[in-house]
Amino acid sequence: MSLPFTHLTSTKQLTRSDTDAILAVAKEMEGVLKKGGSDLLKGKILASLFYEPSTRTRLSFESAMQRLGGEVVTADGIQFSSLYKGESIEDTIVVAGQYCDIIAMRHPEVGSADRAAAVSPVPFINAGDGPGQHPTQALLDLFTIQKECKKIDGLNVAMVGDLRYGRTVHSLSFLLGLYDNIELTFVSPKELTMPEKVTSFCKEKNITFSEASDLEAALDSDVLYMTRIQQERFADKSEYERLRNVYTLKAAHLKSKKTVVMHPLPRLSEISTDVDTLPNAAYFRQVRNGVPVRMALLAMLLQKA
Amino acid sequence: MSLPFTHLTSTKQLTRSDTDAILAVAKEMEGVLKKGGSDLLKGKILASLFYEPSTRTRLSFESAMQRLGGEVVTADGIQFSSLYKGESIEDTIVVAGQYCDIIAMRHPEVGSADRAAAVSPVPFINAGDGPGQHPTQALLDLFTIQKECKKIDGLNVAMVGDLRYGRTVHSLSFLLGLYDNIELTFVSPKELTMPEKVTSFCKEKNITFSEASDLEAALDSDVLYMTRIQQERFADKSEYERLRNVYTLKAAHLKSKKTVVMHPLPRLSEISTDVDTLPNAAYFRQVRNGVPVRMALLAMLLQKA
Amino acid sequence: MSLPFTHLTSTKQLTRSDTDAILAVAKEMEGVLKKGGSDLLKGKILASLFYEPSTRTRLSFESAMQRLGGEVVTADGIQFSSLYKGESIEDTIVVAGQYCDIIAMRHPEVGSADRAAAVSPVPFINAGDGPGQHPTQALLDLFTIQKECKKIDGLNVAMVGDLRYGRTVHSLSFLLGLYDNIELTFVSPKELTMPEKVTSFCKEKNITFSEASDLEAALDSDVLYMTRIQQERFADKSEYERLRNVYTLKAAHLKSKKTVVMHPLPRLSEISTDVDTLPNAAYFRQVRNGVPVRMALLAMLLQKA
Repeated sequence: MSLPFTHLTSTKQLTRSDTDAILAVAKEMEGVLKKGGSDLLKGKILASLFYEPSTRTRLSFESAMQRLGGEVVTADGIQFSSLYKGESIEDTIVVAGQYCDIIAMRHPEVGSADRAAAVSPVPFINAGDGPGQHPTQALLDLFTIQKECKKIDGLNVAMVGDLRYGRTVHSLSFLLGLYDNIELTFVSPKELTMPEKVTSFCKEKNITFSEASDLEAALDSDVLYMTRIQQERFADKSEYERLRNVYTLKAAHLKSKKTVVMHPLPRLSEISTDVDTLPNAAYFRQVRNGVPVRMALLAMLLQKA
Repeated sequence: MSLPFTHLTSTKQLTRSDTDAILAVAKEMEGVLKKGGSDLLKGKILASLFYEPSTRTRLSFESAMQRLGGEVVTADGIQFSSLYKGESIEDTIVVAGQYCDIIAMRHPEVGSADRAAAVSPVPFINAGDGPGQHPTQALLDLFTIQKECKKIDGLNVAMVGDLRYGRTVHSLSFLLGLYDNIELTFVSPKELTMPEKVTSFCKEKNITFSEASDLEAALDSDVLYMTRIQQERFADKSEYERLRNVYTLKAAHLKSKKTVVMHPLPRLSEISTDVDTLPNAAYFRQVRNGVPVRMALLAMLLQKA
Repeated sequence: MSLPFTHLTSTKQLTRSDTDAILAVAKEMEGVLKKGGSDLLKGKILASLFYEPSTRTRLSFESAMQRLGGEVVTADGIQFSSLYKGESIEDTIVVAGQYCDIIAMRHPEVGSADRAAAVSPVPFINAGDGPGQHPTQALLDLFTIQKECKKIDGLNVAMVGDLRYGRTVHSLSFLLGLYDNIELTFVSPKELTMPEKVTSFCKEKNITFSEASDLEAALDSDVLYMTRIQQERFADKSEYERLRNVYTLKAAHLKSKKTVVMHPLPRLSEISTDVDTLPNAAYFRQVRNGVPVRMALLAMLLQKA
């Protein structure tokens, strides 16, 4: 199945038919993984460009490429020399595109992914542009919901924690807008409520949503998506200290409930480790799902699936 | 040959039958290397997680994996982002285990390897946990002794330098406790003598050992294992300056002697470069031996040897 | 075709017959790339040792190795641990040589490449030693000139910018000394003129050269090689500020001219982005040419081409 675009920079560019295709190929890729990988992308090179460290996302992309027989070249972290010497992001991408067949980039600035995609000589995937988009995370979240709940249409999804700065809950909300009869429950302290860009999107798409500040409001949803209060988003450290432990999901909260618990990780104290062994705890399976989803995207954008 | 454990965190978990098996497979791996490698681990991925830089050990593991046709994903140094965000080592390992088939980890804290192995979803190898254990180094040391001396039982092994903080001499002593009629000679300044945990182990295992402060006491042993005085272990810099050059092995010391000289490297001034060209100088061969030993461990823990 | 040396540290060691052979194999490698790579170096490992970050050069080497089916182990940047512990560059290279089949090294000190090559147990390639040599850059520049101009003999090549500290223009000048009837035009501010080592080389080789300070003097050459004024070479920041924008090549300069514009990149303001879309702009093709040239060198030094 092929996609009607060359570069993936945002969940906003995806239609229902796109997500259906991606999830279907991701499902096939789980079969490939079970058989120990394939040589589908033999001879292809992924450039994994992480201007901002994100071990989790980077290893997931690199593992996905290698599971399909492809190779990886990596540039990681602050030592990104050319940029240091003042090169534009456009030049860096045109240059990197001479060495590889596809690029995945994490960059701290919003909009950097669009600038990169505009000039990239090879398929480009946004692996997170600061507080902007992180479409592959949203797709693996969607794939996880589908696997855990056997459907997406008609679900009630609660999102809890830092909804204001949390990139993942924004991207996931936009993706859920492609599905029917979704109900969303937004649970956050009043300082960290879901921004207007998401709530107005919900209104436009006729997604029913409610807002609350109490964790109880989220416990009976089909999916409970916990997020971390991110220290790096707070200028005021005391504000962070006050809010960091505002929600802590414990095993006791989930007694006799079927709620699927997800989290983009890393988690701090917002999910107690006594939840880890419950069948509800889907967050480590969610991490694992990142590999087949990224395999699907790599293969589809390289016209090999 | 298979091993009776899934994870390797310490030399203390090894029996004589384990080391015999590992050394035998390492010997086979030398044949594989001579033929230019193999595809034994094709489709397998090693995650090489180095929270503390150690280029030597990391490259040795990665080379070993690639010589067997496997792939590698690497996370190196202080930019380990998730940890920086406060994630527990347990979560990091569970996550990394979703991306790979086997993990090698170097970490600055004693005990981190046991914590990691306790939760790892895939085979785990300790590549050094601070001043704790470094079992693959001890195994390559043992393999080197066997290759150079054609036997291990009955040897006299002298250890020289920083015996107090030197992780490698502790691990090697524990391994030599599995062999018969070993004599050990410990040569160090009085500030850096072998710790009680090792000397009491020797007594318990009926290993004959003697202690001295003069390099001469070590020169007639079968194996002379030199170590570096490690600056990073001294709080007091002047103490380090006083002790750093206490022993310097020179070619003149080895005149008409068959003593095999080993060193875990890097070396500073404790072995003069005029030793390098003597047949006694086994330390670069010792480095080379790290590759077949790690190939053996990777293959055995992945149930492929 | 084989080369009459094991290690490549400087353009000065190359004869015309060597460069002819390298360019011929690079041409063949373009065919290999077009077919999606090969398995020529399957089972071989490149150690990519960058003591100084240079993402561009490193990714180019690593891509070249992987396009030929080889593997790569990488050590990048200031975290090079063994060196940090005081190990000599000679020991580091002997050790690295135990893990791989060929080494590419970037190091900040002039002469480090010669020291490394003197002891390396495997073929060694200098990937830049501080302000010293960078022979693979010069060879890809030469390959680019040949591809763009269909010849090298008889060309007029203008070099513009920081000719004093610019490593690439020195190395390229030395290589052009192997060809017939070359004319060079050196354009720089008087503070950054071509050093005597290059001008005396030109006199010795009967290369006609002229010096100017005005960009106009360079515009009618066959090749216009622009360079960046490098901030890191100036102790005096105000001096840098005064000189950094002294030359800016614009599309208007090239109106109805056939001059081939090259640049080693990264570029700052010395080439306006309105040049990028002109057929004259060869600098991104030049980057691309680095891959087949490095494939050729890797294959030839490993006796596989």
